[in-house]
Amino acid sequence: MTEVQVVEWLKRAAPSTGRGVVLGIGDDCAIYRARGSSEDLLVTTDQFIEGVHFRSSDSPESIGHRALARGLSDIAAMGGVPRFCLLSLTKPAKYDDRWLKRLYRGLRKLAGRTNTVLAGGDLARGANLACDIVVCGSVRRGRAILRSGAKPGDTIYVSGALGGPASRNYPVRFLEPRLKLGARLRASACIDITDGLALDLHRLCAASGVSARIESIPIVRGATENHALSGGDEYELLFTSSAESPDGIPIGRIEAGEPGRIWLRDTAITPVGHDHFSV
Amino acid sequence: MTEVQVVEWLKRAAPSTGRGVVLGIGDDCAIYRARGSSEDLLVTTDQFIEGVHFRSSDSPESIGHRALARGLSDIAAMGGVPRFCLLSLTKPAKYDDRWLKRLYRGLRKLAGRTNTVLAGGDLARGANLACDIVVCGSVRRGRAILRSGAKPGDTIYVSGALGGPASRNYPVRFLEPRLKLGARLRASACIDITDGLALDLHRLCAASGVSARIESIPIVRGATENHALSGGDEYELLFTSSAESPDGIPIGRIEAGEPGRIWLRDTAITPVGHDHFSV
Repeated sequence: MTEVQVVEWLKRAAPSTGRGVVLGIGDDCAIYRARGSSEDLLVTTDQFIEGVHFRSSDSPESIGHRALARGLSDIAAMGGVPRFCLLSLTKPAKYDDRWLKRLYRGLRKLAGRTNTVLAGGDLARGANLACDIVVCGSVRRGRAILRSGAKPGDTIYVSGALGGPASRNYPVRFLEPRLKLGARLRASACIDITDGLALDLHRLCAASGVSARIESIPIVRGATENHALSGGDEYELLFTSSAESPDGIPIGRIEAGEPGRIWLRDTAITPVGHDHFSV
Repeated sequence: MTEVQVVEWLKRAAPSTGRGVVLGIGDDCAIYRARGSSEDLLVTTDQFIEGVHFRSSDSPESIGHRALARGLSDIAAMGGVPRFCLLSLTKPAKYDDRWLKRLYRGLRKLAGRTNTVLAGGDLARGANLACDIVVCGSVRRGRAILRSGAKPGDTIYVSGALGGPASRNYPVRFLEPRLKLGARLRASACIDITDGLALDLHRLCAASGVSARIESIPIVRGATENHALSGGDEYELLFTSSAESPDGIPIGRIEAGEPGRIWLRDTAITPVGHDHFSV
């Protein structure tokens, strides 16, 4: 099964809402509504694994930064502001105390800049270095931006030019999650681009029960349209709106049609992207 | 550094409260107070790793069950009730779809019985099977039972006889987290016994700034006092109270003295237990 198939199987198997959970499996974050509160809590968890998401030779600061940035990007995509995070870390003995402190330094620097409190976590020894970051954010009650709200006629936007990460050989960027944009965004639906424009647009359209037609894609210098369509780790926001948005570059339009179907101009495309589970 | 040393270093390095977090690093759960809410949210994360916490030959149902049980036990130790969980899973290709579904079945069965909604998670491919479970629970505002509330003169209790897991060669139990007890508990301090009575009592006493004297330990048939003192995976609750408790077996008394110092009758003991990070 791919990650999408596991998610579909889980959704069919048991309800993923209730007990205060108002949005369960299948969006960027789960949403919990604490009794009597004026805010909704967004909760997301993201793994960052040696040999899968990063290389052993990457600097520990960049590993800590990127582990947290992935979770913060999910908060941005729901229109929230970060509150706190917890880091679960599995560490082989070969990485020493100094290395470990550098990893936390990378994480804490980004946490400090984004007002994210490191409130806990878990530590274990293991054969491979692995981070799992839990990020909790908040949004005004009922105001989270879901993947499922796109409507035919909406314009599709991206928050920046794409293709950069995929066009470089092995880019280690201290990427900045789009938190400021997410917090002010007015959009009918939103997702962060983690696994390629095509796959993430497909996810948004499948959740909304619509199809999409891409007309043109803003691409960074040196990248191709294909880099932009199927390259992961962009962390730009992909969103839809019935109104003109000052915060995005229009790339196409939402259409009524087969849910999840993506057209590039007049060609139906298969949403190939980076499924970290099936690959 | 041991896990305790990392935790101390993190606590010194930056505040782990604020932004709604009223209790940060160093207890069984972090506590978040949503704006205007009558309940506090408890958040805990626990790793469960192949070759460290379980064997590859264990049944997938037991792996799913135990991964969740560890998190639920932390909720019980704070006096809360579970609300929802998220599972991050790293899975090698050798475990097939059927095996994966059995793991989820083990987890979901316990989730269903404890009113815990599986609200999301993350999936990745990797060389070693690893689960990281996030469990969120709730407790009436300000009513969480912390590790830090023990006072000289309090009686120390355990919720059941100890030493069972350590005395058996390799016990795979479908352990039941002490949720019902936790939710009704009146205690000045509480912790769940995951890493051995000696180490967990040391943690409770260090957090409370007190020492403790153990007089007698209830032990299961076939186990020794040493199994009870340093064996992990008990998931009984260890708690203190100034009043007589109908829910526990008294094992000793809290004393003023060197914070964290543990006496077994008249002998000071070194809290050797299972530190999953330093081992």
